[in-house]
Amino acid sequence: MSVSVNAPRDVLLCGALSPDERRAWLAALAAAMPCTRWHDLDEARQQPEAIEAAVVANPPPGSLQGWPRLRLIQSLWAGVDRLLADPTVPQDVAVARMVDPAMTQAMTETVLWAVLGLHRRFFAYARQQASGLWRRHDQRRADEVTVLVLGAGTMGSAAIEALRQRGYAVTGWRRADGRPALETCIAQAQIVVNLLPLTTLTRGLINTAFLGRLPPGAAVVNLARGAHLVEADLLAALDSGRLGHAVLDVFETEPLPAGHRFWTHPRVTVLPHAAAATDPRSAAAVVAENLRRLCCAEPLLHRVDRQRGY
Amino acid sequence: MSVSVNAPRDVLLCGALSPDERRAWLAALAAAMPCTRWHDLDEARQQPEAIEAAVVANPPPGSLQGWPRLRLIQSLWAGVDRLLADPTVPQDVAVARMVDPAMTQAMTETVLWAVLGLHRRFFAYARQQASGLWRRHDQRRADEVTVLVLGAGTMGSAAIEALRQRGYAVTGWRRADGRPALETCIAQAQIVVNLLPLTTLTRGLINTAFLGRLPPGAAVVNLARGAHLVEADLLAALDSGRLGHAVLDVFETEPLPAGHRFWTHPRVTVLPHAAAATDPRSAAAVVAENLRRLCCAEPLLHRVDRQRGY
Repeated sequence: MSVSVNAPRDVLLCGALSPDERRAWLAALAAAMPCTRWHDLDEARQQPEAIEAAVVANPPPGSLQGWPRLRLIQSLWAGVDRLLADPTVPQDVAVARMVDPAMTQAMTETVLWAVLGLHRRFFAYARQQASGLWRRHDQRRADEVTVLVLGAGTMGSAAIEALRQRGYAVTGWRRADGRPALETCIAQAQIVVNLLPLTTLTRGLINTAFLGRLPPGAAVVNLARGAHLVEADLLAALDSGRLGHAVLDVFETEPLPAGHRFWTHPRVTVLPHAAAATDPRSAAAVVAENLRRLCCAEPLLHRVDRQRGY
Repeated sequence: MSVSVNAPRDVLLCGALSPDERRAWLAALAAAMPCTRWHDLDEARQQPEAIEAAVVANPPPGSLQGWPRLRLIQSLWAGVDRLLADPTVPQDVAVARMVDPAMTQAMTETVLWAVLGLHRRFFAYARQQASGLWRRHDQRRADEVTVLVLGAGTMGSAAIEALRQRGYAVTGWRRADGRPALETCIAQAQIVVNLLPLTTLTRGLINTAFLGRLPPGAAVVNLARGAHLVEADLLAALDSGRLGHAVLDVFETEPLPAGHRFWTHPRVTVLPHAAAATDPRSAAAVVAENLRRLCCAEPLLHRVDRQRGY
């Protein structure tokens, strides 16, 4: 890991981190930027004019207001939809997303696991085990399975590459490809993997119309944001038998509430928002690089376009 | 697919094939060897001297006796342990295993899926879903996970290659490496994947002694033969908490009997011997090539060494 001496002296570190997570981040950030002091919200409020940068993970609403010299808000997470939805986040301060190689690899692993499980019927075999049923299903080759990956940024591209390496027939779709292209892709997709950023254009994308265009028995893997998917529409498509299976890592409400039908639905796999986490050990270097760029007035990495929403 | 005119005119096709499977094989074999007639056991017994080759999938004991001109027994399956255990199989007839690229890819997919599931705790999340528990586990990088692959033939090598591509720390062990090397490998393996052939030397290999040498919390993936593993020893290791999880595709008795503890054990994943099947569409070309070699007196592919047992 490179150690940068070009870093602001005082940085705010705040957000939804457990004590263990905060410790891990502080250790990794201190190793990457030994001359920087990391302040929690209470400490930082003692000397607001000292804070030039904030490193945040879902910070509480309002926490990014009141820093006269703040120039960079660096997210520790890839998705900045909640951050941008907070009207108190100052509009004139740069926001950067996290693109962490370890997170990209973790997401690729989750995609690969879900697609292998759907293609090779391992989710069906798990259901069978629960009822003591020994029954083999036909074995398809990977090149007979069409996978549509929604989102072709860093994570989408890595997932597409890994799926192609395993022989799958993969199509990638990004917003810039337009809606007509999406309709065509959906009609052929046996497995849809959602890795899109959540924006006004992608919210509720996976709804009855979307699901109705998929070939019968198709599967949906949502690893992006719960609000991409209309949960009632998904349940209806599963219950009608049109949709074969759903692997869901994200939900309208997280943690997924007790009693939610997803918990017990035989064709839904619930993951506790665990598809891919930032790894402080590699992500600290990304933070350090952006803080160095801030100090040296160089263009920031992964800067968010607020208009676009990611 | 290449079409061979050098093939015996009359070939016995017999074994444990369902009517659908037999139809698929006959279609693929006929396409690859259009001049060959494929006989079932009853038909072939009408003219035993016509049969020069037998293409078999777990044939009934005694079925390979009484063919005066038989020169090749070509298995449709990779494992020939049951075939070699039948004392009525003539000793002077060549036996060939099936090495089908589609089966190798299917096995690699199953290995990758099982290792990803263990590494990323997806089996644990499935258990959590069953009890409505939302809890995230620590995310390890692939290079922090040590995988030991037992067996380094075609399937073992392909699995090792795919796991390395995903970043895992992989060790391969083959019988020729010797027992002391195995002991060293076991002590470091967080995940053991068994792809060995079943022989007198590998039967019962995964027993209490083997499991006791694994690091605490390790996992076993058995995709080879049920008899490689002592089921009572595995259950004891799981129940003591020493072994974290087992993914089992093969069993002492198949189908796995109703009421067997594996069906309901929370730390056992049961697959119905579905890790990798031969695909007639690609395997027929392998059969055609070996029958051509038989006709042209060229060395056979994947010929079994009966002393060695595979």
